[in-house]
Order: sequence, then C-alpha cells, then structure tokens
Amino acid sequence: MGYRSLREEAFAANMEIPKNRLAVYTWGNVSAFDSSRAVFAIKPSGVAYDELSEDAMVVVDLEGTIVEGKLKPSSDTETHRVLYRNFTGIGGVTHTHSPYASAWAQACKAVPVFGTTHADYGAEEIPCTAYLSEAAMKHNYEKETGNLIVETFDRQKKNPLHMTMVLVAGHGPFTWGESAARSVHCAVVLEEICKMGQLTLSLKSDAALPDYLIRKHWERKHGPNAYYGQ
Amino acid sequence: MGYRSLREEAFAANMEIPKNRLAVYTWGNVSAFDSSRAVFAIKPSGVAYDELSEDAMVVVDLEGTIVEGKLKPSSDTETHRVLYRNFTGIGGVTHTHSPYASAWAQACKAVPVFGTTHADYGAEEIPCTAYLSEAAMKHNYEKETGNLIVETFDRQKKNPLHMTMVLVAGHGPFTWGESAARSVHCAVVLEEICKMGQLTLSLKSDAALPDYLIRKHWERKHGPNAYYGQ
Amino acid sequence: MGYRSLREEAFAANMEIPKNRLAVYTWGNVSAFDSSRAVFAIKPSGVAYDELSEDAMVVVDLEGTIVEGKLKPSSDTETHRVLYRNFTGIGGVTHTHSPYASAWAQACKAVPVFGTTHADYGAEEIPCTAYLSEAAMKHNYEKETGNLIVETFDRQKKNPLHMTMVLVAGHGPFTWGESAARSVHCAVVLEEICKMGQLTLSLKSDAALPDYLIRKHWERKHGPNAYYGQ
Amino acid sequence: MGYRSLREEAFAANMEIPKNRLAVYTWGNVSAFDSSRAVFAIKPSGVAYDELSEDAMVVVDLEGTIVEGKLKPSSDTETHRVLYRNFTGIGGVTHTHSPYASAWAQACKAVPVFGTTHADYGAEEIPCTAYLSEAAMKHNYEKETGNLIVETFDRQKKNPLHMTMVLVAGHGPFTWGESAARSVHCAVVLEEICKMGQLTLSLKSDAALPDYLIRKHWERKHGPNAYYGQ
Repeated sequence: MGYRSLREEAFAANMEIPKNRLAVYTWGNVSAFDSSRAVFAIKPSGVAYDELSEDAMVVVDLEGTIVEGKLKPSSDTETHRVLYRNFTGIGGVTHTHSPYASAWAQACKAVPVFGTTHADYGAEEIPCTAYLSEAAMKHNYEKETGNLIVETFDRQKKNPLHMTMVLVAGHGPFTWGESAARSVHCAVVLEEICKMGQLTLSLKSDAALPDYLIRKHWERKHGPNAYYGQ
Repeated sequence: MGYRSLREEAFAANMEIPKNRLAVYTWGNVSAFDSSRAVFAIKPSGVAYDELSEDAMVVVDLEGTIVEGKLKPSSDTETHRVLYRNFTGIGGVTHTHSPYASAWAQACKAVPVFGTTHADYGAEEIPCTAYLSEAAMKHNYEKETGNLIVETFDRQKKNPLHMTMVLVAGHGPFTWGESAARSVHCAVVLEEICKMGQLTLSLKSDAALPDYLIRKHWERKHGPNAYYGQ
Repeated sequence: MGYRSLREEAFAANMEIPKNRLAVYTWGNVSAFDSSRAVFAIKPSGVAYDELSEDAMVVVDLEGTIVEGKLKPSSDTETHRVLYRNFTGIGGVTHTHSPYASAWAQACKAVPVFGTTHADYGAEEIPCTAYLSEAAMKHNYEKETGNLIVETFDRQKKNPLHMTMVLVAGHGPFTWGESAARSVHCAVVLEEICKMGQLTLSLKSDAALPDYLIRKHWERKHGPNAYYGQ
Repeated sequence: MGYRSLREEAFAANMEIPKNRLAVYTWGNVSAFDSSRAVFAIKPSGVAYDELSEDAMVVVDLEGTIVEGKLKPSSDTETHRVLYRNFTGIGGVTHTHSPYASAWAQACKAVPVFGTTHADYGAEEIPCTAYLSEAAMKHNYEKETGNLIVETFDRQKKNPLHMTMVLVAGHGPFTWGESAARSVHCAVVLEEICKMGQLTLSLKSDAALPDYLIRKHWERKHGPNAYYGQ
C-alpha cells in the first residue's frame, strides 16, 4: 500500500467532477502526481463515479508502467503522462467533457480574455490546439494528444505554470495545477469562463478587454506584489 | 408474476428519466425487451414518475397484445414495438422530450459530429427523420413513427447496433441499446451532445471534425481493437 | 374557516412555483377558484415562498371583496378575477416570471408550434398580447391586463379551455386550467416549450411544423377519440 | 466582540451567494454597513464559502482601517468603502461574478428595460460603466473602481437608492441596498434580468418596452402610491 495518500488525493479530486457537473457517467478523469517518486495515480478506465473508490485508482510511473492497482488506467493516461514529463512543477491533471468548454474546443477557438474572471486565471487567451494530424493519431492517439498540447504551449511561448488550461480541438479541455485538487478547480473555472464567453459573444460579437486591465487582474493574484487571499 | 424481472428492469430505467431531468411530468417512456420470450415491459400511459412502480409496468408482446399488467401501456408503445421487430439485437428503447434534443428535432436537423464526445457514441451524424407523411399519420401515427425510423436507417444504410440514437422531425429523440438501462444512457448522452452542438454552432456556424478523428474515437471504444473500459 | 380546502389547494399549488424554479423570491402567484361559491384563494402580496402557509392565503370573491384572510392579496389579484369572470370553466390561474416565457413575452412574440411537445397542449400558437395601452394602464393596470388577455382570446377566436397559456407583452406568462394544480402544470410546460422554441430558432430561424402533425398530437390527448393516459 | 451582529449579518448575506449559485469557490463578496458607527463587516479575501464563519468577517471603518478581525479583508474592500462613502443611505454591498451579469459587463452593455421584471427594480436601464482608465487603474484599482461607479451614477444622474445595480465594464456586477441581505437580493434579481435580457435579444434584436409601462411597474412597488407587498 505504498501509494495510499496519492490514491486518496486522486480519488477525492475525481469525485469533484460529478459534484461540479463537469461530466456524466464515466467521462472525465483526474490524476495526482508525486514528483519525488515520479508516479501518478489516475482514475481507472470506464468506471462510473458512484462505483469509484480510493482503491480503484491506478498508479503509473513516468515510463507508463503500472506500479500499483488491479484495474486498467484511464484511456487518457498517456496524455497525462506526457504532461507530467513536460510541464515541470505540476502536480495534477484533469480532463473533462464539460459542455461549454467542449463547445469552444469543437469550434476550434481559443477563448479571448473578455473579462477579469478570466484574467484572474491568466493574462492571455486560453489556447486551443490545432486538430491532431492523421499521422500523429495513427501513431499513438493519446500520447500524441499530450505532445500536441506541449507543442502548442511551446510554439505560443506559454508558461504552463501561468496558463493551466487548454482546449484540444474537436475534443475538450485539459487543465492542471500544483495538485490534483487545483487541476479540477481550474476545470470548474474554465467551464465558467467558457459559459461567460459564449454569452458575451452572443451579446457583442467583437467584445475585447484592454490589455492593461488583463494584466492588472493577473498580477493582483499572481504578480510579484500579489495581494489577493490570506 | 411471470415477467417480474423484466418489469423491474423497465421500472428502474424509467426512473432514470426524471433523475437525469430528461422530461417533466409524465413525458418520456422506456421499455425493456426479453428477446427469448419476445415481449417487452413499458411504462403505462400518462402516469407521473413519482407514482410509478414496478407493478405499474405493462408487458406487451411483439404482436401488440398485452400479456401482463392492469394499466394501458404508453401511447408510444407501437413505436417501441416496431423498433424491437426491426432492430434485431436491441434490448431497450427510450423516448424523451429532453429540451436540446427536441430542439434539434424541431429544427429537423441531423446532429453533425462536432467532436469526440459524439464520436465515442457513433462515427456518423445522428440522423433526423423527415416529417411523417399525412397518409402515414392517418394510418397509425405511432406505428408509422416506428416505420419512419426504420426506413430512415435503411435508406441511410445505418446499423442500429452502431448508431443508437435518432431524432424524429418535429417530435423528439428515440434511443436504444442492448438493455433498457443502456437506452436511457444513450438518451442522456444525446441530450449532452445536442447541447454541445447548439453551443458549438453559436460559436462557429461551420464547425466540422475531420473524418479520421471521428473514426478514431469510435474505434477506441467499439472497434476490433477497442481499448476503453475494463 | 369556511374556505379551508380552497386555501389548501391554493397553497399547495403556489409551492410548486419554487419547486419547479419558475420564479425567485416573492415573484409569481397562483389562485384556486371555487365556482360554486364564486370565490378564489390567492397568494398574499410580497410574501416569500418559504414563509407561506395555507393560512396566509387570501380569499376574494368575484366582485374583488376579500371574504377571508388577514393579509393583502397579490397585486395581480384583479387579473385573476377578470380571468375567472370571463373564462368560464377554469378552476385555477398561475402567473410567473419564468425566464424563457418572460423572454418571449419581452420579445412580444407568440410561440409557434415547432413540435409535438407544444401540440400536446394546444394545436395553435401560444398567443402574445399587444402592449397594454397607456389609457388602459392608467385606468386600472391589473384589471386591464386581465381584459387585455380576454380581448386577445376573443379577437383571435381562441377557446381558453383549449389554449390555457398566454404571454402578456413586456411582462410574462399567465396560465390556467381546471384546477390550481393544472394551472401550475401549464406554467411548467410553457417554460419548457419556450426553452425548446428559443433553442429551435437558434438552430433554424424558419422552423415550422406541418399543420396535420399539429392537429394529430392535440387530438390524441384532447380530441373526441383521445387515447393518451389511463 | 463589539461588532458581532454586524458580522452575523455580513456572514448570513455572504452565504446567500453560493446558495443562489452566483459564484464558485471564493468569488464574490458581501458587506454589511453600520451607519451609526461608520464601519462595515466584509468577507475575508480568498476564503471558500464552506470555510466561512461569522468570526472570519473583517470589520473596516470608512477610512479603510481594520477595526476588528484577524484575516485580510476582501481585495474588493476599497470598492465597497467608496460606495458607502458616496451612496448615503445604503446598508449593504454585493459583488459577484454571476455568469449572465458578467457577460453583459464583458460586452460593455447597459441592460435595457425589456420588461416588468426589470421595471419592478428600476424604471431605467441598468448602467454599465466605461472601462476603468489605465491611469486610474495604476493609482488604486479597487478604489478607482468604486469612483468609476460613483462617477457613472453622477454623470447619468442616477439615484443609487432607486437604481441599486451596476455592471463594471469587463468585470462584473455590483449591487447594494438598505441592508446586506437586500444587496444580495438585488444580485440574484440582476442575474435573472440579465438572463431574460440575453434570451430576449436572441429572439428579437430590437426589443424595447414603452416608457409608460416601465414607469408603472416601478411606481406600483416604489412610487408615492405603491401598493405591492404587505
């Protein structure tokens, strides 16, 4: 029982998905990463949330080998693994099919910064990847989805410790953070931002926030002189 | 008490309709099919969900004769019967008036595959029938609604074991599956897909997913080398 | 305590408004009519639902005189009174500010019959009044709102026992039925129809259902050979 | 324990935010003002609602000095303070990021009076400020946000005891009232009005209510001859 607390963290974070109505049935998955041991605990594949338990979590190392657990890990495990290998410093990853975020992903649109709700979580648009290429898809769909996210961040020079949300084109959102709990928190916030954004465009198709306001909200929470919170 | 377990299955599946907010009051109905005995248990007509019980279910054979139960079966019973007679291999049928699916049906539009949420349940658009003709309607409205669904699948060469959802133009959704529970599962998923689809079009009126991505998601769940789930 | 059962009926029906999320705070009101005694029990004005009781209901006669109750009746009492005087045969009236129905009323648009969900409750569009004239408003706002509804039904030759829903332009919905409970039922259904209608138009701006299908659904529930329900 | 009842009032009003789903996590804040002592109690910064207690509230005077409480007050405290200093007669202020109101704020649009739901709370549009200028933002973001609201009301000659709602462009809503509880009430109503307004525009892009109807609804609740409520 070497990874009990990691499995507990992953289980608790996974249960936030149905609680916050981010996905129905078995959709969605959260993992919790232990950087000192280079392993992560993740939801098993195709198991409904009301049948989930801490014991059902599967522990996988950064080579993709299962090191603890009896069930098959989430089919998205390779995507999580690529993110942990590339985004140094993150401790949790969440994937959902929440409806507003999925709609933006299906529309292949990055989410512009329309307001301070968004700016509090990033002074930049929430990126949307290109469609995964057919070649990449045939190679290893889930692993290449992770690579696509990493490449998108590289090309757009985004810092994954600042922007912790992405939309995968035609698929849905992935979010991360310093812990599994934080990654789900970001998934909840992303859905709220995507809902506000869809409504904003329906009211004003060319809405845009001035850049100085975008930076201000980010910095009051995350800048060198941040003053939000205790 | 010859059909007790079948009535229990039908009752449990019917109760998923209000639980998942797929219909208000008495709207919607689910049936469970026993292929070995060629009968199905279905919700009685016009009974509210909080007054429903396993005993209230009505058992009907494939000729349309009531073989057990004191109440009148759902007014949509003939539609269910036609589907069981024609779609060999299915074990449950659900009909609801869930708002997003009904809106697509009222708009007489098939739902394009905008993303992987959809592709996981079918590598093809969710069909919408034509309006039922006046002649068919006058003949036998509910039976001809079933025939209309079957003809739509025939003409579009769709396999009802692969695509388990349909929109009846100007009416609403029917879904099915290997069991009554699975047919309601598909009704929940269809509503979610229709919501995402409406939002997607509001963000990008010409959204479309490349075909190779559509096929991939279907095959990872249902193809010869499926690897989703336990 | 001469009107206890009438007050009980009105109270129970009023409590359906928050239960079905048709209004917040004190918005909305339901009345129950006793035609044999020509009185109705109605919600008191400005009282929140969680402070409401059967004893708080106010009983008013068809001349507008309070015959039982210590509180002031709903400010919309005169509208209810006009409906009871003119729509012979109804036993309950509901007024809400439910968001989708209010949006159609604010858009001053009758709700076309887009599908069978609507046709089950009326083989015709749900009418929207004109704006109340300034002269009528100055005379007696609430009474003239009732007159406006009655005139709209007269001019459009609508039978209030068949079409039990109306939108008052720039205001919101009124519904009625053979009992207070049925009038709230119609308010819930109207909100659902208005939601489906708004979504339908967002998908297809010129949606329309053929007339023969409209009539069919109405007649299977309400025609001479109705066969829906027990 | 000199401000216990004020902290209790502020705590109870803050808990209405999650109850009415006006904000997720730590978003949103309510304060309660004691005009006789010229102090207000406000939510601490960055504390989740389910960890909140009456004791966590922070009491601040009109100079911005903390007079009771161990935690840091809300980062929006300066905005509240400016409103109490300038809008004489108010006893509570609420700020949320509710999605529909935030969408209107992100679209930088005042909410027109489309119907009587709105007119009951103000016979005039709900104003939206201009974007805060870069100079004002650099000076003191939160204090200048308060000044921006006050200036908007001055320039538009609005009476803050009549119109108790404002949208801050690119940010979200602030509401107030004679008590903390009333300020949250107005936040709930504003969200409902903004939802109805967005739906109304989607149905009719040039919707508008005649002025005489706007005034009538306001006056029946708030005019010299008001007759709504007990």
